[in-house]
Amino acid sequence: MNNIKVVKAEQLKSKPDANSLGFGKYFTDHMLVMDYSADQQWHDLRIVPYGPISLDPSAMVFHYGQEVFEGMKAYKTADGNISLFRPDMNLKRLNASCERISIPQVDPEVLLEGIVQLVNLEREWIPEGEESSLYIRPFIIATEACLGVRAAKEYKLLVILSPVGSYYPEGIHPVSIYVEDQYVRAVRGGTGMAKTSGNYASGIKAQEAAKQDGYSQVLWLDGVEKKYIEEVGSMNVFFKIGGEIITPALTGSILAGITRDSVIALLASWGIPVVERQISVEELFEAARQGVLEEAFGTGTAAVISPIGTMKWENEQISIAGGQTGEWSKKLYDSITGIQKGERDDHLGWRHTIS
Amino acid sequence: MNNIKVVKAEQLKSKPDANSLGFGKYFTDHMLVMDYSADQQWHDLRIVPYGPISLDPSAMVFHYGQEVFEGMKAYKTADGNISLFRPDMNLKRLNASCERISIPQVDPEVLLEGIVQLVNLEREWIPEGEESSLYIRPFIIATEACLGVRAAKEYKLLVILSPVGSYYPEGIHPVSIYVEDQYVRAVRGGTGMAKTSGNYASGIKAQEAAKQDGYSQVLWLDGVEKKYIEEVGSMNVFFKIGGEIITPALTGSILAGITRDSVIALLASWGIPVVERQISVEELFEAARQGVLEEAFGTGTAAVISPIGTMKWENEQISIAGGQTGEWSKKLYDSITGIQKGERDDHLGWRHTIS
Repeated sequence: MNNIKVVKAEQLKSKPDANSLGFGKYFTDHMLVMDYSADQQWHDLRIVPYGPISLDPSAMVFHYGQEVFEGMKAYKTADGNISLFRPDMNLKRLNASCERISIPQVDPEVLLEGIVQLVNLEREWIPEGEESSLYIRPFIIATEACLGVRAAKEYKLLVILSPVGSYYPEGIHPVSIYVEDQYVRAVRGGTGMAKTSGNYASGIKAQEAAKQDGYSQVLWLDGVEKKYIEEVGSMNVFFKIGGEIITPALTGSILAGITRDSVIALLASWGIPVVERQISVEELFEAARQGVLEEAFGTGTAAVISPIGTMKWENEQISIAGGQTGEWSKKLYDSITGIQKGERDDHLGWRHTIS
Repeated sequence: MNNIKVVKAEQLKSKPDANSLGFGKYFTDHMLVMDYSADQQWHDLRIVPYGPISLDPSAMVFHYGQEVFEGMKAYKTADGNISLFRPDMNLKRLNASCERISIPQVDPEVLLEGIVQLVNLEREWIPEGEESSLYIRPFIIATEACLGVRAAKEYKLLVILSPVGSYYPEGIHPVSIYVEDQYVRAVRGGTGMAKTSGNYASGIKAQEAAKQDGYSQVLWLDGVEKKYIEEVGSMNVFFKIGGEIITPALTGSILAGITRDSVIALLASWGIPVVERQISVEELFEAARQGVLEEAFGTGTAAVISPIGTMKWENEQISIAGGQTGEWSKKLYDSITGIQKGERDDHLGWRHTIS
């Protein structure tokens, strides 16, 4: 893989202020690109200056939403190296999303090598702040210029990089959540298990309504019975009830989060089992009423661990862990970010070090 | 509305062969564009040469699918005029889709005036063949360069035009349909009632599987019980059972088709009521077994009326109207296309003539 063509930017941007990075607002000097055509399959992987992409207005992505994406992070570690966190998992999931959305799959080794070269080239962009990292966004879009409703014959893969601070401006602090019982994010047989744009578009309206009512995110219920808990915002969700840690089972409409998987594996490595099963919002609120809902938190690449302090469902509002960050939320956050940043022992072999 | 800025193309394309238009493969010389920013709202409506649009790779449409679109047609009428078919309905639905996807709504009068001017400028592109027309595709995409999951603050509206032949290469001939019982297109509380890209991305995989098995389209069942009929491919669907014409009621996950509305109104004007209600696939197949399923057809802007000749569900295959185009399918097709083309009396006032 020494044959990745690199076209360097003629002028480099000035780096943004490390204290006002926000999320996904700034982008580095270069990006990774690869094209797909029916004839040549995936070809011409290259690094080029970050800049606009030019597409025919009839490009299928603008009409029929054939798109998949991933989100991962690069960190500067304590020893001065750069590391990625479980990138193999992201590339595996990218291909699973491709399969669902009828996009041709990508060779994960080729793509990882490309991402590693891009991140290496942009290493000066990796921010060093406590909750900062270089966010990596691979995505694939259908570029064929045609309005027929079918799988496209041409695609473009891009990987762009963004130095990011904490996803939530308030950092790791408990958020308030609204249980959404009108709008639905996904349903079995739909695309909920894929990381594809349509799932996010469908959630915006509910999220806006929650924000207007003073809540940070919505808790999504299943599309069939509107009874079982699925995700929170764009994160997976965990609860600690009467000493037991529970997360909704992956039934087909929930994204198989990599932080979700990491939380389960990390707890297992500490001898703490996580129960993956259906959990209804009624069971959750009843646990709160009984005083046994001890903790709740969302998990995702962007926020890592996002503790939930309050939750509202219909006319009932509950406080969780006294509205504070719970013990396990904090422990998991510190452990995962510690492993990511090379400050803790990587006993599960999750760091992918770029030398 | 004389203030629409027009930048003419320096060189005009040669027109494609009228016999090989296909659907959405060729585009005219110009397009309509309008921009939205939080400060200026929708502004700068203009006609410019048809050509690529340039977007930042982080433009939100590529990631979170905030997109809505419409489909309508312009016809050359028998008297040499140009007409649109019920464009007010399309613009109303565009705004309903915007509302669901949290995209700022558009002034329908301003947009219609822009479309009329564009179609007028491109009148030489309207094909004259029997099943031909100029397809009009308005669409809005989120263009803000940011990876935060929320409604964008910048959008672009485009209207592109494509001379089209029959949507189905075989013209009005019965198609074979596969009842999809694994994948789901939409669910109540989701985005099924909006014309947005994610609904189409989610359907491609099932459609590909149906095609591989020799079927033209899939019949979608509801996402909750996987029992009730919703749509066929990207069309609404009608059945004639024991003399009665039935179509699934609009329960929130079905697109409110304009051809659907036209079929209901046209039949009503002839004194024939259409029953809008839930209909299960079991009821449909039982009617076929009893010999009382007399006709079935899809309705949509692209195909107008698409008769269904055979249908497969699990291990049972049924033939409808002897695999032929049914009486009402033909009558409705002839009437609607006749009104569209100015060959029939427009007794419901549906033609919007461009003088």
